[in-house]
Amino acid sequence: MKSFSKENLLQGDASFRRDFVNALSGYKSLNLIGTISKANETNLAPFSQVFHIGASPPLVGVLFRPHTVERHTLQNILDTAEFTLNHVAKSFYEKAHQTAARYEVSEFEAVGLEVLNRPECTAPFVKISPLQIACKLISSQTLDVNDTVLIIASIEHVWVVDGGLREDGSLDLEKMETVTVNGLDEYYIGKRLGKLSYPKPGKEVEKLL
Amino acid sequence: MKSFSKENLLQGDASFRRDFVNALSGYKSLNLIGTISKANETNLAPFSQVFHIGASPPLVGVLFRPHTVERHTLQNILDTAEFTLNHVAKSFYEKAHQTAARYEVSEFEAVGLEVLNRPECTAPFVKISPLQIACKLISSQTLDVNDTVLIIASIEHVWVVDGGLREDGSLDLEKMETVTVNGLDEYYIGKRLGKLSYPKPGKEVEKLL
Repeated sequence: MKSFSKENLLQGDASFRRDFVNALSGYKSLNLIGTISKANETNLAPFSQVFHIGASPPLVGVLFRPHTVERHTLQNILDTAEFTLNHVAKSFYEKAHQTAARYEVSEFEAVGLEVLNRPECTAPFVKISPLQIACKLISSQTLDVNDTVLIIASIEHVWVVDGGLREDGSLDLEKMETVTVNGLDEYYIGKRLGKLSYPKPGKEVEKLL
Repeated sequence: MKSFSKENLLQGDASFRRDFVNALSGYKSLNLIGTISKANETNLAPFSQVFHIGASPPLVGVLFRPHTVERHTLQNILDTAEFTLNHVAKSFYEKAHQTAARYEVSEFEAVGLEVLNRPECTAPFVKISPLQIACKLISSQTLDVNDTVLIIASIEHVWVVDGGLREDGSLDLEKMETVTVNGLDEYYIGKRLGKLSYPKPGKEVEKLL
């Protein structure tokens, strides 16, 4: 195995370190976050730092790096308290990647992703996205350790494409062709190995799907 | 599209809600966390809530649900300030799932995953894992919103299997057969769509890999 100490990483090349450390946790979720500014300008940006916080009530967390292109998104969320999460599917992952460019105009228009407005939320949705969520800001805090900002939001409304949701509440991400990201710029779709039975001591794991 | 309001979810079936909300962010990273108790008992448990916090210095975050099977892991981290992260690969994902069962003995022994001890860390590694990380606790806080506990740790040392690391610092998760999880119990491997060039306005996205 190749081995790296913290000191090796800190003394080494910055670009190597950034790519390496970003990838260490493994596959990450990928969502486009849609927001609208106080001046009514729509904004869209890709995020790989969206995670589950709780189901009752339904809560989601988002981590924002300080001083990055994502600043518009964070500012708009703090200003309006609303945002949308939109799964990225195989059919538009390159456009989703391109929304991270520093455009002067709305990323929806710049990359050619159509806005969907819904009465349930002031922020814009990505019309083509197979899973769309309306979120409402609950709290925001800056982590002392490196000025990363942690947003916690409630899940107010969810839309999921026909066929993407199973009867038990689980999602068929393979069928929706939801995309996952590795590091900063590498995109994958999933191939299912198995949906496994609830683990109990002394009981063989069963493949349910 | 099917649509669910927060009220629909809260008034609906608890098991549906748990599976649905857990899956909403999309694919999640999957790591086995290895710890050792003050009484020298090793512990191993699967986590899908490990995320990147920063590269300089290298930092990682882990979210722990309150009152779940993962409590041993959290207690051991708070007691010893050390833990390991181990990627789960296709060859042992069923064993990884089974470590979530409530065993009286060490999960390493119970499911048949061999311990690897390394001088760099008191916590145990999963010998067969293609990517292993030694972590040191920096801080822990309880989130007011639902008593979830957020741990922040520094990445002290990383080991990656030959062939898993590219020259630029990025990881080949497909080659390592790293597994990703959807919801609570559904496992996938990734199939690469593309590694894309840095996004710039007016510049066509290029596929680098």
